[in-house]
Amino acid sequence: MAGTLDIVFAPSGRRGTVPVGTTVLDAARSLGVDIDSVCGGRAICGRCQVAISPDEPGRSVSPPGPSETTDYRPRRPLAAGNRLSCQVDALADLVIDVPASSQVHRQVVRKRAEVLDIEVDPVVRLYYVEVAEPDMHRQASDLRRLREALAAQWSPEFADLSIDPALLGDLQSSLRQGKWAVTVAVHDNCVISAVWPGFRDVVLGVAFDVGSTTVAGHLVDLLTGQVLASAGMMNPQIRYGEDLMSRVSYSMMHPGGAADMTAAVRAAVNSLIEEMTTEAGAAIEEVLELTFVGNPIMHHLLLGIDPRELGVAPFALAVEDSIRVRAEELGVHANPGARAYVLPCVAGHVGADAAAAALSEAPHKSDDIQLLVDVGTNAEILLGSRDRLLAASSPTGPAFEGAQISSGQRAAPGAIERVRIDRDSLDARYRVIGSELWSDDPGFAASIESFGVTGICGSGIIEAVAEMFLAGIVSADGVIGGVERSDRIVAEGRTYSYMLIDGERPIRITQPDVRAIQLAKAALYAGVRLLMDRLGVDHVDEVRLAGAFGSHIDPTYAMVLGLIPDCELDHVHAAGNAAGSGAMIALLSGAARAEVEALVRTVEKIETAIEPSFQAHFVAAMGIPHASHPFARLAESVPLPGRRDDSSSDTRRRRNRRRA
Amino acid sequence: MAGTLDIVFAPSGRRGTVPVGTTVLDAARSLGVDIDSVCGGRAICGRCQVAISPDEPGRSVSPPGPSETTDYRPRRPLAAGNRLSCQVDALADLVIDVPASSQVHRQVVRKRAEVLDIEVDPVVRLYYVEVAEPDMHRQASDLRRLREALAAQWSPEFADLSIDPALLGDLQSSLRQGKWAVTVAVHDNCVISAVWPGFRDVVLGVAFDVGSTTVAGHLVDLLTGQVLASAGMMNPQIRYGEDLMSRVSYSMMHPGGAADMTAAVRAAVNSLIEEMTTEAGAAIEEVLELTFVGNPIMHHLLLGIDPRELGVAPFALAVEDSIRVRAEELGVHANPGARAYVLPCVAGHVGADAAAAALSEAPHKSDDIQLLVDVGTNAEILLGSRDRLLAASSPTGPAFEGAQISSGQRAAPGAIERVRIDRDSLDARYRVIGSELWSDDPGFAASIESFGVTGICGSGIIEAVAEMFLAGIVSADGVIGGVERSDRIVAEGRTYSYMLIDGERPIRITQPDVRAIQLAKAALYAGVRLLMDRLGVDHVDEVRLAGAFGSHIDPTYAMVLGLIPDCELDHVHAAGNAAGSGAMIALLSGAARAEVEALVRTVEKIETAIEPSFQAHFVAAMGIPHASHPFARLAESVPLPGRRDDSSSDTRRRRNRRRA
Repeated sequence: MAGTLDIVFAPSGRRGTVPVGTTVLDAARSLGVDIDSVCGGRAICGRCQVAISPDEPGRSVSPPGPSETTDYRPRRPLAAGNRLSCQVDALADLVIDVPASSQVHRQVVRKRAEVLDIEVDPVVRLYYVEVAEPDMHRQASDLRRLREALAAQWSPEFADLSIDPALLGDLQSSLRQGKWAVTVAVHDNCVISAVWPGFRDVVLGVAFDVGSTTVAGHLVDLLTGQVLASAGMMNPQIRYGEDLMSRVSYSMMHPGGAADMTAAVRAAVNSLIEEMTTEAGAAIEEVLELTFVGNPIMHHLLLGIDPRELGVAPFALAVEDSIRVRAEELGVHANPGARAYVLPCVAGHVGADAAAAALSEAPHKSDDIQLLVDVGTNAEILLGSRDRLLAASSPTGPAFEGAQISSGQRAAPGAIERVRIDRDSLDARYRVIGSELWSDDPGFAASIESFGVTGICGSGIIEAVAEMFLAGIVSADGVIGGVERSDRIVAEGRTYSYMLIDGERPIRITQPDVRAIQLAKAALYAGVRLLMDRLGVDHVDEVRLAGAFGSHIDPTYAMVLGLIPDCELDHVHAAGNAAGSGAMIALLSGAARAEVEALVRTVEKIETAIEPSFQAHFVAAMGIPHASHPFARLAESVPLPGRRDDSSSDTRRRRNRRRA
Repeated sequence: MAGTLDIVFAPSGRRGTVPVGTTVLDAARSLGVDIDSVCGGRAICGRCQVAISPDEPGRSVSPPGPSETTDYRPRRPLAAGNRLSCQVDALADLVIDVPASSQVHRQVVRKRAEVLDIEVDPVVRLYYVEVAEPDMHRQASDLRRLREALAAQWSPEFADLSIDPALLGDLQSSLRQGKWAVTVAVHDNCVISAVWPGFRDVVLGVAFDVGSTTVAGHLVDLLTGQVLASAGMMNPQIRYGEDLMSRVSYSMMHPGGAADMTAAVRAAVNSLIEEMTTEAGAAIEEVLELTFVGNPIMHHLLLGIDPRELGVAPFALAVEDSIRVRAEELGVHANPGARAYVLPCVAGHVGADAAAAALSEAPHKSDDIQLLVDVGTNAEILLGSRDRLLAASSPTGPAFEGAQISSGQRAAPGAIERVRIDRDSLDARYRVIGSELWSDDPGFAASIESFGVTGICGSGIIEAVAEMFLAGIVSADGVIGGVERSDRIVAEGRTYSYMLIDGERPIRITQPDVRAIQLAKAALYAGVRLLMDRLGVDHVDEVRLAGAFGSHIDPTYAMVLGLIPDCELDHVHAAGNAAGSGAMIALLSGAARAEVEALVRTVEKIETAIEPSFQAHFVAAMGIPHASHPFARLAESVPLPGRRDDSSSDTRRRRNRRRA
């Protein structure tokens, strides 16, 4: 068995010479090849599997011994042709295939083509160790012997690990219960954050997106990046105020009001953790990491900071940095050693949600100029590329969320979300949330029987106004006219309304509704324009519309109305819950945390309220682009079936739950 | 005003050349001279005072301006001849005296001549800063601007300070309440642990000695080292068991018993903090640092660790390292940002109290061989010098604390603590705790009227047995005899007792009492002897007797009985509450924390239970050294008044409160 051999690892291509008889896992480690292991080479965890061609055993590698065939195989899966690299001795020159699932830094593939995959860079890793029993001759404490075992069996650097003081109470019993074999969770390579008796190879995390309307979380296997459960619920703060500003007002008017809202959102977080762990058949004690994103006001309330300063100029954040804190300090119930990471805010009105969306959409890694917009009561706007990135918020108000609209409502079953107006008859067709049928489809009435048509939501009002413009009901400067063309145009005092639905529960688009949409869209556009001026561009290469609203408006109509600047239509993407995706990325990757922290430091913050040109842009953006605009024509020509492609029942269910 | 000048700072002798017109404080800083300042050169705090000779102003330094005479002087003391170094411009060559009180690293002088002074090396420092108001043009958060102010006004390194998340909720209001001027506490140069509105220059700490019988604390001004209040109380754990082992048993027998005892001791800590801050006219929120010492079982219970493993071999500690933890995590109520430091343990039965005693007595800095003994249910023994230090514990049992003695009792008013037996008549004289008179002094009966004579405590029983030996009542092998000499020797079954007090409530020293003391002292001596063997010495240069017991036994009698090895009598010192002193040193000095951590790592731990020679030493030590022993003769010749020197009423009161 003397001598050496050459070994090559695919796909990394790393190669080197090792002594004959070296295990493949040891060879990999000595060559810096990324192979996972939780048990440390004891044929327990099965994470170090590699592919060996079937005719190799006995020739280039040792044949399977009892540790694989008798001990391991009956207990856990071993893919065909795979071997446990910790149990295979290399005997002659060979090539080893390391499957993606055996790599620590594996990729999590995301569904949207335009975004980068997530590289898992675990913030927590598990280490199985066998600890020396206490010995009167040495008098080393349980913790010291645990550290010594970690250092000897895993990495010399672990000799100096600190331990979360919250674990001290259970350390003795875990060691004894595990008969001196325990699995240790190490957070960020520096602190022991959990100790479990015996072997364990699952550790969970939760990524939270704390929205003003909805609090949503994903329960994730931290080692594989796999989502085990997702859940969302209304933000219970809604009882203190429907929108953000009314919650800030509540805090200003009521002593202790901020504390009440903090307690409410933390209770929601705890209830979602319960719900998701139950669904996944796990215990809350298995949750070791949490990440949180939210707009600045949600961010402050989650952290127990009164948001009142965000309600008045100069809109000073108490803190914009990322926050690393023990979960318990946020009142979050999980493992006693669980850590929470709250993503950083960008600026006074550009929150951790925007930072997370940027982490997900990665304008800072893009060669093209990307515009990333998240519309809520404020629009959070990021514009730029890898060279330079700007951020601003713009006071769109709640019109895009259906508020301050005569028949407006939050997106919920019964809300009109799509509108088409016949250019000649001016008759309308529409679709409502909760049904996949258009109002002139057979069976429509039955499909909405349980909830009826209750109002119009943000995406509905945008399409309605855009269609009214395209049908000539609304002029380029936003005035409703054409009373002579149809009795759907009705006078209301000195102005006109368009009767979208007549009857017992009529739904009209009134002149003030159009004005509200004009104001909102002008604010959004002016903010974008301001950033374009600053960046010195008159064109953006790509638009990402984030958030629930961004996912549901039709980009064509958005451009017809002039919400966003012109851009190739196939370069306009709904980014979905980009903030939530960012929270997930930060949950799975320590490198991503560093990345988002660097990003918020380098991004240039523009405060629209004090920019003289904002007002000019705002006024200029009040009108609706001329009907000869190419996108106006495009909107007219888009066939209806094409609008349906995102309305599978699956998407629909998710939408009903998550809409802002 | 052009040109430069030479400036010399006394007592450091640092000198250098600075531009004419430099303030003395700036000159000191540029030369690395240690001058304190909390206000940062704003003529507010008065901590940077230096002595300038009266004829200098106008010549070598600028005369006092309104900042000193009008603004500062009416508000705070300025010693005669002193100036505020931040307000004095150097005009020509000069020498500046920096008084000790203006140095950050000032010395705290200790009363005992044989110990080193404490060099204050603050773990917390205060920094007064004026923070920029929020500005929409910059969009920097309150925290960022606070950090920027700290970096600009104090040290560039402060740009990266972290902040205790518990402070985030009050940060905004502190800044606004202080009109953007705040005082910041920085812990260990790395974390902002408090932010107060406006100027403040006092920050408090508490050093706790958690004994099995007594919990005692000192409230200290962290910047000056001045003790503001002291308090002690019975450890409420006593209701779960009088001595340590019965508390361990309680924990073994009662599920949740350890948690109950943890809660009890933490409640005592909180009540002492309340008591001391009230006495000092301070608020608990002013307490920012706490240190704790205790034997291993107290250490574990304080930290919420079940001590049951310490009750059975191999006596494994859960953790021996020092613990840095937020005070809140120990259930301790103080400032929300308060930190606790629990000193490290040495070994299974040599606790943080022994480590602290070593920090105080500094055998590791001694050229001589020092023996440091702290006697409780276990004796904790340290032996060595700067070259090598050994530690062991020895199972003395509770006899030295008055337990398991027929008339024994804890040290408390009414307990006999001093005994003299007439060599001929065998009559006894004694003194009891609570009175300064001997029993044959006039007025004795009246002085003890309120409590009477209730029993005999540890120091009393030691003197009684030693005096019985010196009077020939007890033989060198511990047998009571001499029934023919006096009717104070009475038969009890097959053995004899010595009638120390006759009458209604007799107090006797019985044969089992003598045996109990023999066993205890043999255990102690054998432990010491074992360490001497290991160290290769047959003589110790110095003995320090720590703890309440050590403070009250007479070293002469301790040597007569053979508790400790022979040593020059004037090299035997009562170290008082050395553990408490160590807690205080660690409270005042970050360097001392590093020192004690290094000390416990390097000290060699000896487990007496597994040392074969321990048993031999133990058996050999059962006898009482021959009466011709020089210390026996010495004890006979010591005049009584000499025994009284420690019995001032002041000492007495403290003793009654603190005795173990």
